Amino acid sequence: MARFDNRKNDELREIRITPGFIKTADGSALIEWGNTRVICTCMLEEGTPLFVEEGRGWLTAEYAMLPASTPRRKKRETLTPDGRSTEIKRLIGRSLRQAVDMAKMAGFTAWIDCDVIEADGGTRVASITGAYVALHLAVQQALASGRLSRDPMLSQVAAVSAGIVGGEPVLDLPYAEDSGAEVDMNIVMNSKGEFIEIQGTGEGRSFSRSEMDLMLELAGSGIERIMHMQLEAVRSGCR
Amino acid sequence: MARFDNRKNDELREIRITPGFIKTADGSALIEWGNTRVICTCMLEEGTPLFVEEGRGWLTAEYAMLPASTPRRKKRETLTPDGRSTEIKRLIGRSLRQAVDMAKMAGFTAWIDCDVIEADGGTRVASITGAYVALHLAVQQALASGRLSRDPMLSQVAAVSAGIVGGEPVLDLPYAEDSGAEVDMNIVMNSKGEFIEIQGTGEGRSFSRSEMDLMLELAGSGIERIMHMQLEAVRSGCR
Amino acid sequence: MARFDNRKNDELREIRITPGFIKTADGSALIEWGNTRVICTCMLEEGTPLFVEEGRGWLTAEYAMLPASTPRRKKRETLTPDGRSTEIKRLIGRSLRQAVDMAKMAGFTAWIDCDVIEADGGTRVASITGAYVALHLAVQQALASGRLSRDPMLSQVAAVSAGIVGGEPVLDLPYAEDSGAEVDMNIVMNSKGEFIEIQGTGEGRSFSRSEMDLMLELAGSGIERIMHMQLEAVRSGCR
Amino acid sequence: MARFDNRKNDELREIRITPGFIKTADGSALIEWGNTRVICTCMLEEGTPLFVEEGRGWLTAEYAMLPASTPRRKKRETLTPDGRSTEIKRLIGRSLRQAVDMAKMAGFTAWIDCDVIEADGGTRVASITGAYVALHLAVQQALASGRLSRDPMLSQVAAVSAGIVGGEPVLDLPYAEDSGAEVDMNIVMNSKGEFIEIQGTGEGRSFSRSEMDLMLELAGSGIERIMHMQLEAVRSGCR
Amino acid sequence: MARFDNRKNDELREIRITPGFIKTADGSALIEWGNTRVICTCMLEEGTPLFVEEGRGWLTAEYAMLPASTPRRKKRETLTPDGRSTEIKRLIGRSLRQAVDMAKMAGFTAWIDCDVIEADGGTRVASITGAYVALHLAVQQALASGRLSRDPMLSQVAAVSAGIVGGEPVLDLPYAEDSGAEVDMNIVMNSKGEFIEIQGTGEGRSFSRSEMDLMLELAGSGIERIMHMQLEAVRSGCR
Amino acid sequence: MARFDNRKNDELREIRITPGFIKTADGSALIEWGNTRVICTCMLEEGTPLFVEEGRGWLTAEYAMLPASTPRRKKRETLTPDGRSTEIKRLIGRSLRQAVDMAKMAGFTAWIDCDVIEADGGTRVASITGAYVALHLAVQQALASGRLSRDPMLSQVAAVSAGIVGGEPVLDLPYAEDSGAEVDMNIVMNSKGEFIEIQGTGEGRSFSRSEMDLMLELAGSGIERIMHMQLEAVRSGCR
Repeated sequence: MARFDNRKNDELREIRITPGFIKTADGSALIEWGNTRVICTCMLEEGTPLFVEEGRGWLTAEYAMLPASTPRRKKRETLTPDGRSTEIKRLIGRSLRQAVDMAKMAGFTAWIDCDVIEADGGTRVASITGAYVALHLAVQQALASGRLSRDPMLSQVAAVSAGIVGGEPVLDLPYAEDSGAEVDMNIVMNSKGEFIEIQGTGEGRSFSRSEMDLMLELAGSGIERIMHMQLEAVRSGCR
Repeated sequence: MARFDNRKNDELREIRITPGFIKTADGSALIEWGNTRVICTCMLEEGTPLFVEEGRGWLTAEYAMLPASTPRRKKRETLTPDGRSTEIKRLIGRSLRQAVDMAKMAGFTAWIDCDVIEADGGTRVASITGAYVALHLAVQQALASGRLSRDPMLSQVAAVSAGIVGGEPVLDLPYAEDSGAEVDMNIVMNSKGEFIEIQGTGEGRSFSRSEMDLMLELAGSGIERIMHMQLEAVRSGCR
Repeated sequence: MARFDNRKNDELREIRITPGFIKTADGSALIEWGNTRVICTCMLEEGTPLFVEEGRGWLTAEYAMLPASTPRRKKRETLTPDGRSTEIKRLIGRSLRQAVDMAKMAGFTAWIDCDVIEADGGTRVASITGAYVALHLAVQQALASGRLSRDPMLSQVAAVSAGIVGGEPVLDLPYAEDSGAEVDMNIVMNSKGEFIEIQGTGEGRSFSRSEMDLMLELAGSGIERIMHMQLEAVRSGCR
Repeated sequence: MARFDNRKNDELREIRITPGFIKTADGSALIEWGNTRVICTCMLEEGTPLFVEEGRGWLTAEYAMLPASTPRRKKRETLTPDGRSTEIKRLIGRSLRQAVDMAKMAGFTAWIDCDVIEADGGTRVASITGAYVALHLAVQQALASGRLSRDPMLSQVAAVSAGIVGGEPVLDLPYAEDSGAEVDMNIVMNSKGEFIEIQGTGEGRSFSRSEMDLMLELAGSGIERIMHMQLEAVRSGCR
Repeated sequence: MARFDNRKNDELREIRITPGFIKTADGSALIEWGNTRVICTCMLEEGTPLFVEEGRGWLTAEYAMLPASTPRRKKRETLTPDGRSTEIKRLIGRSLRQAVDMAKMAGFTAWIDCDVIEADGGTRVASITGAYVALHLAVQQALASGRLSRDPMLSQVAAVSAGIVGGEPVLDLPYAEDSGAEVDMNIVMNSKGEFIEIQGTGEGRSFSRSEMDLMLELAGSGIERIMHMQLEAVRSGCR
Repeated sequence: MARFDNRKNDELREIRITPGFIKTADGSALIEWGNTRVICTCMLEEGTPLFVEEGRGWLTAEYAMLPASTPRRKKRETLTPDGRSTEIKRLIGRSLRQAVDMAKMAGFTAWIDCDVIEADGGTRVASITGAYVALHLAVQQALASGRLSRDPMLSQVAAVSAGIVGGEPVLDLPYAEDSGAEVDMNIVMNSKGEFIEIQGTGEGRSFSRSEMDLMLELAGSGIERIMHMQLEAVRSGCR
């Protein structure tokens, strides 16, 4: 069965990462992933939340969607935070905290902001992937300016989705596939090919161990390619 | 290495499910899972949210902790919902929606409430497991009273945690293990032994494919035992 | 005229107090009062609100109802606190502050939480009565552990409702009577038989001085019996 | 012992009621009670809350304090409603609902607003007393204009405080007495001399039955005098 | 074309300022401007917001409307602040900050509160005009009592509206004109005849430079007269 | 005196408008105005607020800043809306409502969203100017698709700032000038060279009539040039 956009099952959408998209930010990237576009920024601010022990830093993330990022205008979150956004911003935060040695960020909080300007599926994996670039650039800048004295980057972090659509395991679902997917999985990995976070959800049906194995394989090979693009973006952003 | 409470790595804590714990609810259970205790209730109410198509029902879940359920009093959530609770209630809802054929619940919403009265790790898997019993009992009552005409139950749903503690894969983590776990995984399965939801998080380190496999095995065998207890509770609760 | 549940006008519903119901709390009790059930907990925490003078302690109370505690699911309070709950938690706090010598609690706040798990009328008097037990047990524990050095308990505090139903003064109204009562009174007393708080409300009609006198008499004799049960619970809870 | 302001124990402060103080309101009064001043308004609006049965009306009240009404500026209530205000507005609403036959207000809600512009103790009893005048004037206007066809006024309602100060029962406590009172009581009565609401609170000590009797006597005689002033105000306001 | 209330185009409504209307406030005035009536108060409190540099003071303003101040009851602002009120309170604050030398208010914040008790157009200019009097009186009192050692008043501040109604430039619009005005302008000036703030809005049509000139002329002459009344009120309020 | 960025007093910063920047929106533009960058979108949705009469449409605007749009991260607005944003979004809404014949938008609401991604002064005038382009493009699309049958565009709308800096009237203030400006003015005009909105604020000093005249002249000539750019963008965006 052909996919919605004629991609092969193990093919990624076209991904473009523009480092330094927001000049006021310490680090930033515009990630364009198919028709999904997310502005990712990182601000390194002094101070840490109360629950962080002395001698350590912290990283926290926020996620929002521009009202016009979906074909039907999405109300801004104000009084009642949206459950989905809460879930996503926690996932972004957890994932990127794995990229950093908090002892080398002592006294600083890295604020990650992911603002979706166009949404076509996969906004959470695009956010994590782009936020890694923004974080890395912010850290490079802080090392250059002397705000940080030791490089806290531990590992590269990237994410991708996989799922089961029409009975077949596929990589990187756009909205048209995602909304009708039977199983939907988001995988976050590091550069050693190990898992940082796996979230798999059966939507309307359960999934077997072997189906999961196939999805993880697709994800693993996809993330390898994505990590090349991240490195490229970090390199060109630091120049 | 011995576990904190001398259990074997593949051993569950003691679990006790008391059906019908809240007499005002349509269905309810007190689930006591080691030192974790959760009151789970289900109310079947007429009406569905706007986004639900006609001819279908809905299921939604809420999760809260009694302020005194942790050794240090936890403020009630009011103006600012807690991100962790939001994440958990969404997981409970998604998981239990898989247990039900929404077409056979047309016009009804099942409201699941999980209120943790004592917390010692694993509150989300205890909530899902207990909520299944509350839901099943509420449905039985509705069938008996004629509010529902067709049985909407599709499949049994239960959950358990697994993780890597001190380098070893273990089943069912209490708080003392969970807070220091290297990897933490929550697995929701149905009675066919298939997955409904998998959430694995590396806490401070990543995890390999083979580690994941070991955790899933532990989870699968644990859930089998848990499902027996659920059935027992549903049976005695319906008498 | 016979009462709804065949009790005599001066007869209490069956009351059962289970001390130590919540093991994570410093003090706790499950109070079952007819079909009304309330979990009462007390946590002694360091620190006092800004308005409390140095050298003194404080006591504050919260009150909530489980969504499934009433036959029709009650939405949780989040953004807009419920006026009735606000009124009740203030009453609980005022009443129990009378039980304690704040100078002997210097630097501590006693947090009382009353969570109604089943509601059948009289939840506020059950809350006060059960919260006294939770408070007393928490204080005993703090004395035993040395967190408090002097016993701050001044007096026993208990509460009961009385009212006029079908023209007759009656003691201890369940929901079926309360909702149709002409006059509804909540009385809080100490062990000397004196009043700590009286709240009487004519619902649909006014009440005369002599009617009030009759209600107060019923309340006085009821509270005497309730105080025996409290003492029993405190004693068995301290063992 | 002489009182703070040299009044006799059974003497009221000077009370002045200016009907029609707010010309945009359907009914209004400025009540000046010693140094306490409250603007009371009543708006009769079409529509009733959902919980009101067809063929009936409703009355609801709000209470607020001008920030500068106390010597130290009081923040406006916005996100977090003040517990004390909530308690007071519920008391005003309950009290005045007793003055009205809801069947004769079918389809209308009477909105009572009490805005304290200067506070010197007794703001809640001044609010109830002034709000009665505003309500009565609004009803008169609605009868005159034909919005209401039948007079819904059932009974006059007024309120006063009494307390025990320095061991002596006294009537009508200003702030200087109230803040140091041992017992504080608010009494709402109708024109038949019967009680609508009684709220007595021991502040720092309990009170005996005979003390309560003395306070009720003071209140009864005070309310009689207050009702004359209300009638006077209603009469001059209707001219 | 005759104006709604027969005034000439350059004629002000009748304005009356009652200084000292709120005795609990440090400074206050009731301003009655045609049928618009606003209670303006000023409280001088110790402490300044975080963003204020040391050695300086601050002034901030709030604005609210009594629910019954308009013929149709206006809900109180609680959770969702009203955009219009926000705009107005910022205008009042900015305008009055120009009246004060913040270095001579070091360590103090002047809290201005403007509470509209009857609204008939022009509430924002009445608020600014009355608030100036309240501020001046509060400052006089603080100088007299020694809380302030140097007089911080820099300049008198007053405001008036002008507009284009039925094609003609007019001064001081009541609600009946304002709601149908083609152009609406609020002008704040000081005693040197210079501008502090100008806000002009075309409502349904744009306006030309020459129309603006005519409105500014009307405003200038009106404000001169208003400043006389302010001075009169300050003088009589200080006696 | 030379300006901060060497511009002449009547010189605009470089302005670039990219139409169609957000493909999911009905109309959109990225406006880059010096270092200020704003994403402006317009969504035409069915339905109008309650206060809009039948047979008419509505236009409303929202304004927000990306957290990283300023050198120091700006917290997202959630519970407590920012007064400045409220003021700006109301100004944007009022200004653009003048561009549209609401009778020809019957039944539709145009939702304007202005999201500042980099802020360097003048974000409100950039928002209005860019939002006009987004609105015009959305209307063109709706006419093309038949959602609207008659063209509702009445007039072009653009905005610019002027001020007095270092004693000299200047056009188009970047943040470095704006934050130290003595007078700050925002002017909104239509294509006939008439005013839609004027807001002038003395910051720390008042301003004279002749100063205002000079600022208005600068603004008028600036807006003329800006309108050419808008037309160009609309034209290229419609192709």
